[in-house]
Amino acid sequence: MNKDEWLPDMDAIRQAARRIEGEAVHTPVLESALLNQVLGCRVLLKAECLQRTGSFKFRGACNRIRALTPEERARGVVAYSSGNHAQGVAAAAQALGVSATIVIPRDAPVLKIDNTRGYGARVILYDRYTESREAIGQEIARQEGRILVPPYDDAAIIAGQGTVGLELAGELTHLGVMPDALFCPCGGGGLVAGVSLALQHLLPSVSVFAAEPEHFDDTRRSLLAGERVSNDSQQRSICDSIITPTPGELTFAINRRTLAGAVVVPETAIRAAMRLAFTHLKLVVEPGGVAGLAAVLDRLEDYRGKTVVVVLSGGNVDLETYIRLMGGD
Amino acid sequence: MNKDEWLPDMDAIRQAARRIEGEAVHTPVLESALLNQVLGCRVLLKAECLQRTGSFKFRGACNRIRALTPEERARGVVAYSSGNHAQGVAAAAQALGVSATIVIPRDAPVLKIDNTRGYGARVILYDRYTESREAIGQEIARQEGRILVPPYDDAAIIAGQGTVGLELAGELTHLGVMPDALFCPCGGGGLVAGVSLALQHLLPSVSVFAAEPEHFDDTRRSLLAGERVSNDSQQRSICDSIITPTPGELTFAINRRTLAGAVVVPETAIRAAMRLAFTHLKLVVEPGGVAGLAAVLDRLEDYRGKTVVVVLSGGNVDLETYIRLMGGD
Repeated sequence: MNKDEWLPDMDAIRQAARRIEGEAVHTPVLESALLNQVLGCRVLLKAECLQRTGSFKFRGACNRIRALTPEERARGVVAYSSGNHAQGVAAAAQALGVSATIVIPRDAPVLKIDNTRGYGARVILYDRYTESREAIGQEIARQEGRILVPPYDDAAIIAGQGTVGLELAGELTHLGVMPDALFCPCGGGGLVAGVSLALQHLLPSVSVFAAEPEHFDDTRRSLLAGERVSNDSQQRSICDSIITPTPGELTFAINRRTLAGAVVVPETAIRAAMRLAFTHLKLVVEPGGVAGLAAVLDRLEDYRGKTVVVVLSGGNVDLETYIRLMGGD
Repeated sequence: MNKDEWLPDMDAIRQAARRIEGEAVHTPVLESALLNQVLGCRVLLKAECLQRTGSFKFRGACNRIRALTPEERARGVVAYSSGNHAQGVAAAAQALGVSATIVIPRDAPVLKIDNTRGYGARVILYDRYTESREAIGQEIARQEGRILVPPYDDAAIIAGQGTVGLELAGELTHLGVMPDALFCPCGGGGLVAGVSLALQHLLPSVSVFAAEPEHFDDTRRSLLAGERVSNDSQQRSICDSIITPTPGELTFAINRRTLAGAVVVPETAIRAAMRLAFTHLKLVVEPGGVAGLAAVLDRLEDYRGKTVVVVLSGGNVDLETYIRLMGGD
């Protein structure tokens, strides 16, 4: 099989935008004069933490589930997720009256688990470090006849996340701004694949970078190696939403063509970026969601006087964790 | 003099919208399905904490300063403020190259003082409980020939804040939503006067309420008395942005005609509303800014199954204060 046939294109992103219109929020592009002063560059931030369910994941899930046939909808869906995709699938399924079962790691933020149940989904917990969520998800799909909605390695999911890029291109054009670079958090790579695909078509001069946490720089290393490599499965990170084991097959096929590169972000920069979002943007951003801003913060010398776009991908963090991460240092 | 001649009207609000276009942010109207579930009513939130300078105050300040003649601009401006108007005036002045001096209470959040200086203004601190900010401001205006930009009792300021209502009416119409009530934080009454004036013209069936903190319910008591009454000047509140001594002359002249009433909000509801904004909206809202949501939270029985609009008026709170208010009870 030729993988290219399964890759989404710009038409798929435009179709996704039509499908999720009226369901997903057109999130604002924010800017703070004081933040620009502090950083020494102009930063525009696409606030996907204000998206329905608190992260961009609703876009892909909504696009995927709206594309199901009536027969498939009747069978229900199953998804595995570190928490944000869980909420996206649960909310998108609920909106269409589709039954949803979600497999979530036991150590996910309580907020993400509670919210997934709040959207009416059945939740099954598993151990992130000893069990395979793919195996559990596929077993449920087989036994119960449910449709699997994968977190990133799926054309409809990537196209849905690509609507972030489509909106951004429109907003930047409206503002009359041509950025030098865009930084986007990257776990499995679905968001940055969709965004970079849209920007390659609409604003090809913008360099798009994936931002990954320490120990989970699989996309960076895969880009260098020219093939998909994995992370050490025993590592830990505060960035719970973007600590996937390896790039997706489809997402990597896109990202190797569209990205200018990928960068590793230290935890100190993650925490500092969370504080900047609090102080200057009045936004609660989760650790993984702020990786793009942290990447800019970590290389200010390179962007002095330039214009950078950052995607703030989600805000689902427990209050206790938030207070702990915001204090100290 | 006939006070009515000095009151802004709908045309003044429309003019303000044109003046601040491209400077002020069209803030989003947000909604959370889970928050609606928790509250048992539908709540739409106008997120003015995402406004430039972190509060709605930029609107009025920008409208007022843009209306100055070139000769007045050259003289510079002076303002007294508990902190949000300070930042609004400083940023609006800076954008037009106008010199600004701001008188701020010594116990205002450090963030508000720092940010005001960050926007290039000269800051003069005073004691909120023993000194008169009006007297200090007027003395500076006299000595230095500066134009006084009052925090609320001014037609151009009220008209600027009224653009929140103008935008809301457009957004609600676009969404096809006709709310039963709107709750808006109230200090001197400029925001709720502007918003209620706009809604009286554009969505007259919506009941607009002012939300005030305990011990600072001067607008509620003034509405009942039929004349402006004052608060006990020795009281304290966590709602630093809305603890003004008495309603403005112009704002009260409007509010007594436009408001359905005013309600007092206990501090426990303020803190609970701040936590709801964190959990479900990913927004940092300051204590005074969340008074409208707290008012709804405090009377859920009255709004079960109904649709309510809330203005989240600002998000300028120190991290230390935020963590203290968000933790425990």
